[in-house]
Amino acid sequence: MDRSNARTNDMRTDCEFGVCHSDRMELRVWLRLLACTNLLDHELRQRLTRTAGTTLPRFDVLAQLDRHGAPVSMGELSQRLMVSKGNVTGLIDRLARDGLVARSRSPEDRRFQMVELTAAGKAFFAKIADEHRQWVTEMMDRLSPDEMTALYALLAGLKNSVLANISEQTPEKVE
Amino acid sequence: MDRSNARTNDMRTDCEFGVCHSDRMELRVWLRLLACTNLLDHELRQRLTRTAGTTLPRFDVLAQLDRHGAPVSMGELSQRLMVSKGNVTGLIDRLARDGLVARSRSPEDRRFQMVELTAAGKAFFAKIADEHRQWVTEMMDRLSPDEMTALYALLAGLKNSVLANISEQTPEKVE
Repeated sequence: MDRSNARTNDMRTDCEFGVCHSDRMELRVWLRLLACTNLLDHELRQRLTRTAGTTLPRFDVLAQLDRHGAPVSMGELSQRLMVSKGNVTGLIDRLARDGLVARSRSPEDRRFQMVELTAAGKAFFAKIADEHRQWVTEMMDRLSPDEMTALYALLAGLKNSVLANISEQTPEKVE
Repeated sequence: MDRSNARTNDMRTDCEFGVCHSDRMELRVWLRLLACTNLLDHELRQRLTRTAGTTLPRFDVLAQLDRHGAPVSMGELSQRLMVSKGNVTGLIDRLARDGLVARSRSPEDRRFQMVELTAAGKAFFAKIADEHRQWVTEMMDRLSPDEMTALYALLAGLKNSVLANISEQTPEKVE
């Protein structure tokens, strides 16, 4: 029996399904970690769509533009989002139609189309980003402050362990 | 500043980049959780490709067939993997060429093409699944058994907290 393919299942599927007590603790931790991440991610996507009336790709475009804070070329935006230029163009068209982004030509090279948030776009993004943060807070509300602190510290240990093994095992692969 | 778009960055990018001490603990835990999951996932993919000489989609197909244990239709396989039928057909073509899967017609309805692991496919999958488990174990080797137990318990608390909030907040949305 293998459970390492759990990531291929539906996000709502519990990654821990099929885990057994004879499994090594490391595997059980890995699958529980995946279960937590997927559940949180899935719920955040759902709320974004249903409550904030936006989709994750739209939210991501707005977030990139907000983070950048200045007009960015379509090519760079596409790279940052790791999404094809065609998809970015479609998203930007719709965001422009909604008045959330504005397009212009690069002053340095008029062949490049630049894009930035409008005032309405900034306000809209600030609102949903704030809700997004509140949702994260809310979804962890069953843990006490002490538990949160302990979890944060243990995850640091896990992260350091993974990082140590990445550089040890595949030294030539670290960019 | 918003950091909730961290997931759009390259997997190697540290999700915790940009986090600050004034951020709520919940956000910091969420970003660290993402960082751990992404680092582990990225490294597992790398090793699968480089060491086991297979890609994640191939591994996922083999894992599904191994889990199923009996011939499965191409349509069902496509659904289980959440991948288009065209992509599954391409993957299966190559796996069949390598002698790892065998195709047949459904005895109930000859219009349906069925697919299953060959003996060589089973052996190959068992080997890489075993390596995959060893990699997970290895990457957590800096944590003591007590730390692993504590992390496992705290992640249970987190999972329960998220589950409790999903059903509370969006009772109509739980399938």
